[in-house]
Amino acid sequence: MSEFVHQRHKPPSELQQPRELILACPEMRSNVNVARIIRAAACCGVGTMIVCGNVKIDPRISREGEQHLDLQIRRSLLPVLKKLKADGYPLIGLEQTSNSENIHEYTFPRRCVLVIGHERHGITEEVLDLLDITVEIPVWGMPFSYNAATATCMALYEYCRQFPDG
Amino acid sequence: MSEFVHQRHKPPSELQQPRELILACPEMRSNVNVARIIRAAACCGVGTMIVCGNVKIDPRISREGEQHLDLQIRRSLLPVLKKLKADGYPLIGLEQTSNSENIHEYTFPRRCVLVIGHERHGITEEVLDLLDITVEIPVWGMPFSYNAATATCMALYEYCRQFPDG
Repeated sequence: MSEFVHQRHKPPSELQQPRELILACPEMRSNVNVARIIRAAACCGVGTMIVCGNVKIDPRISREGEQHLDLQIRRSLLPVLKKLKADGYPLIGLEQTSNSENIHEYTFPRRCVLVIGHERHGITEEVLDLLDITVEIPVWGMPFSYNAATATCMALYEYCRQFPDG
Repeated sequence: MSEFVHQRHKPPSELQQPRELILACPEMRSNVNVARIIRAAACCGVGTMIVCGNVKIDPRISREGEQHLDLQIRRSLLPVLKKLKADGYPLIGLEQTSNSENIHEYTFPRRCVLVIGHERHGITEEVLDLLDITVEIPVWGMPFSYNAATATCMALYEYCRQFPDG
């Protein structure tokens, strides 16, 4: 008998308190990316996710994660972020900028908004102006840029690593 | 002028030595997942990636990452892993098993093989029997399982976090 026996769909880890991470996505180019992010965010126990524009969620890709988090669909991101900022949420952008911190060395605030960029255009300038900080994921090789959903999942992983209990 | 100015496709981070991580994938169900993993692995500076079976790589998804790492296409994974094990590589499976360690608490050997599972069936039993250890990524919410490419990208992120210089 093997030392390692499959145990797919183990009981999940338990949060000691609800996650106070809000994931904010602009209108994305690809509904597949949105659905992939929804699945990962739901698995991570993210409470609230904002998506913008004309979103069609393929439940085969999202695995119906949208039913397990508070998914808010908005026209555009800017007013939502202004409101959240006024409510005291730090806004953290996932973006390569002149000033971005290496996510490996960054400690997230437990209560915050993680702001994602569009696949092609990244985070818009008016949203960049609102942000408290931008973090970037190091890249070592060509093609020198992660897919937007991949980068989001890596950032979610890092946040959850820092707050395994919520 | 904004504090944060886009700087897409910044110069990459530099490895002080080549990565000695080998990424090993069985024949996957989805070529999209394979291509997504290739793009992320190439961005992470992974040197060697093994993929199995009848793989068709869509360069729009992989972003031609396959041209920037040593991509080896094999019939099946088992003989390759036996060879690598004989060569002294620890084999680390990414899989939920009866015995898997939380990847948050796991320290990778710098030189190792990360073994991925099939989307539906996970890592086969005969491959499980060869492994030195299995690691799992915590899951907190429904649908209780990450997409295979998403999980792989998270594990790559964790390995690179531990070895930012290679």
